[in-house]
Amino acid sequence: MSLTTFENICQLLQSKKFNHIKEILSNMNEVDIAELIDLATPEQAIIIFRLLPKESAAETFSYMDSETCKRLIAVFTDRELRAVMSELFVDDVASLLEEMPANMVRRMLSAVSPEDRKDINLILKYPEDSAGSVLTTEFVRLKRDMTVAEAFEHIRKFGPNKETIYTCYVTDNRRRLEGVITVKQLLLARYEDIIGDIMETNVISAVTTDDREEVANTFAKYDLIALPVVDQENRLVGIITVDDVVDIIKEETTEDIEKMAAILPGDKPYLKTGVFETAKNRIPWLVLLMFLATITGMIISSFENALAGSIVLTAFIPMIMNTGGNSGSQSSVAIIRSLALGDISFSDIGRIMFKELRVSFICGLVLAVANFIKIILFDNLILKSGISLTVSAVVCLTLALTVIIAKLVGSSLPLIAKKLRLDPAVMASPFITTIVDAISLIIYFKIATVLLRI
Amino acid sequence: MSLTTFENICQLLQSKKFNHIKEILSNMNEVDIAELIDLATPEQAIIIFRLLPKESAAETFSYMDSETCKRLIAVFTDRELRAVMSELFVDDVASLLEEMPANMVRRMLSAVSPEDRKDINLILKYPEDSAGSVLTTEFVRLKRDMTVAEAFEHIRKFGPNKETIYTCYVTDNRRRLEGVITVKQLLLARYEDIIGDIMETNVISAVTTDDREEVANTFAKYDLIALPVVDQENRLVGIITVDDVVDIIKEETTEDIEKMAAILPGDKPYLKTGVFETAKNRIPWLVLLMFLATITGMIISSFENALAGSIVLTAFIPMIMNTGGNSGSQSSVAIIRSLALGDISFSDIGRIMFKELRVSFICGLVLAVANFIKIILFDNLILKSGISLTVSAVVCLTLALTVIIAKLVGSSLPLIAKKLRLDPAVMASPFITTIVDAISLIIYFKIATVLLRI
Repeated sequence: MSLTTFENICQLLQSKKFNHIKEILSNMNEVDIAELIDLATPEQAIIIFRLLPKESAAETFSYMDSETCKRLIAVFTDRELRAVMSELFVDDVASLLEEMPANMVRRMLSAVSPEDRKDINLILKYPEDSAGSVLTTEFVRLKRDMTVAEAFEHIRKFGPNKETIYTCYVTDNRRRLEGVITVKQLLLARYEDIIGDIMETNVISAVTTDDREEVANTFAKYDLIALPVVDQENRLVGIITVDDVVDIIKEETTEDIEKMAAILPGDKPYLKTGVFETAKNRIPWLVLLMFLATITGMIISSFENALAGSIVLTAFIPMIMNTGGNSGSQSSVAIIRSLALGDISFSDIGRIMFKELRVSFICGLVLAVANFIKIILFDNLILKSGISLTVSAVVCLTLALTVIIAKLVGSSLPLIAKKLRLDPAVMASPFITTIVDAISLIIYFKIATVLLRI
Repeated sequence: MSLTTFENICQLLQSKKFNHIKEILSNMNEVDIAELIDLATPEQAIIIFRLLPKESAAETFSYMDSETCKRLIAVFTDRELRAVMSELFVDDVASLLEEMPANMVRRMLSAVSPEDRKDINLILKYPEDSAGSVLTTEFVRLKRDMTVAEAFEHIRKFGPNKETIYTCYVTDNRRRLEGVITVKQLLLARYEDIIGDIMETNVISAVTTDDREEVANTFAKYDLIALPVVDQENRLVGIITVDDVVDIIKEETTEDIEKMAAILPGDKPYLKTGVFETAKNRIPWLVLLMFLATITGMIISSFENALAGSIVLTAFIPMIMNTGGNSGSQSSVAIIRSLALGDISFSDIGRIMFKELRVSFICGLVLAVANFIKIILFDNLILKSGISLTVSAVVCLTLALTVIIAKLVGSSLPLIAKKLRLDPAVMASPFITTIVDAISLIIYFKIATVLLRI
């Protein structure tokens, strides 16, 4: 939706050309109409919403910001609320309810049918981030003794209210999942074929308590467009559709990226998060890491004599600390991402550490040599810093050791965090940097004390 | 697929119980069989592949590692190659060809039908990361004057070889896209309805040259399962399906995360990348950033006198540098992620900078106060460091200014990179850290020189 459309609609609203607005809206996608209503003032929003054709009102509603939804519900008549609520998919209602105040939840729940209310309560009951919390109960259920013709009849009758009709689920009398069949298979079969004979019985499914990130990885691995979710007794509870999975992948990754950058994850887009909320999400880690950096300061203070004796050593501190931090964060981020994608698990720790050890030897060696050449050619020849060979040796040796230790710390901590059921993403750059800083300074000063005899 | 299945198959291979293997394979998902063949030795791989039922051979092939594909093609008879190639979807063939040596490409292309070859060459011609490079030409094309009954007949006839049949595309005689209709709509319509009357004419589409990340954002925004791709003249070239989009989202995000951690993006999972390749992807940025850190060292050297006069100033350098780096990376990562998700664009720069300015004031103030209290209570009272009020003031003032500048640099650089058509992800933590380090040290020493009169 372009901003010109928005301005256009605003003008038409002012001149009360409602029929013209109706016409524009009927040619727009519901996602774009929702964006338009999000931008509008509360007064404009309800007018635009009331001008929508009935069949797109609920869909538009499902794409709006929760804030806009709240404002609209507050001014809805009971009849309008019922009309919207009965058309929404139960999983959309459930996720909307989670962001509403208690009095609104009550009013909204009283506007849905008793069966829907049962399903919504079921979804709300599952733990956050579980497969159960993102499932929908609106799917097509078939029986194994139906013919293809009967299946089509069933789909035509019950399909319109289902979130997807393209994969149908076959269950027994106790609602246990027996097989799946796609509309493609149905279309290519003969009308008299029996569902039980042509359905796929080797079904990929999730359990309600599975982590939703795992579910997303299953979708990616098997190229699914829907996944059945069963309870502990293999009874089919609902399905998860691929459009929700795309959102899950984006949300989970944003959360991981924020954690890796020492930000507490928020749930709103950047420009929609207030200044105070943004500051509140950023301050805790900054303060904690600032306090942790005291340790580095204490290490420097305790080697005061070494530093006073040879001030040139101080000039290399930022370079050593940065290189250590960067090396560690390369490894930790690579491991955190691979864990999130399900490419590796804690049991691979042996192979990973061995690989990181070899990689860090190569990196450490290359960096030490590059730095040695740089000191000789740039610092001494061009800047005439007169850095002695011994000091160069101290710096390069420290560099190589720092890179090796940084990579081992950076790759092991996320794995250990995963094993301890903590979030590996927290073990990223900022945290690793602080640890590696301390270690590298100790190495630096120890080597300096020995080689420079100070 | 569990490792026990793999060991089981290996044993059966040794005892030549091929019928038993066949039975196991016929009950397995093609993705899992592909994983099994990836794990097997070259000799085992070809035997297992030949035991596969015909209808799952090509699908299994499309899920295998490109290395495994290469090995299998090398030992395929011409007939086997033709059988697999003719069953594969053209987009899968195209992406496979991109990783094959020239002589294999020739042999593979000669095994596909002339029409498919034309389509494959078309896909290969589009620039990497464009919508064109990930499209498939295997979709269902309908005409506007068909009835629903005719459409179903058409789908039954041509559907089996199409990647999706659930969204059908209506084009005119010059192949220009006129509308779309879903199988759901077809199923719920009457057999005598005319496609042109019931199709959706307000079609969301992409152009072949669009960036694939943009395409992924469109899928997420509109909850699509397929998206038509047109050329500059609005002629329908192909479609992109949601399963490919899930992969694109994962790949693009991994690439972004790697760049943010100063790693050159690789294209293989962690454990499948060799030690030398991993080292090669990590060394360039490490060396560059190490050299850039020389600037920080030079700044320290140039304030040698200030430091010699008051060694306590040195102890605070790591804390100030870390806090600056963390503050800057928080902002840059938040901006980079929002840019990738399409939540913000360069035109928002004014609003973003104003927001970051206010956020950074709050963060800077809180950190400065927290640090002041820490110096008084911890450093002086407990550690008895005897840090003077003036030094505390220098440190806290520097801290506040560093946080503000770090956040402004961190948020503006990715936006500027985007504007200059560079990759914003490169402007993440490590790069920002190096810049902020230099700026914060200059601030620190300037303030120290003035307040401490050194």
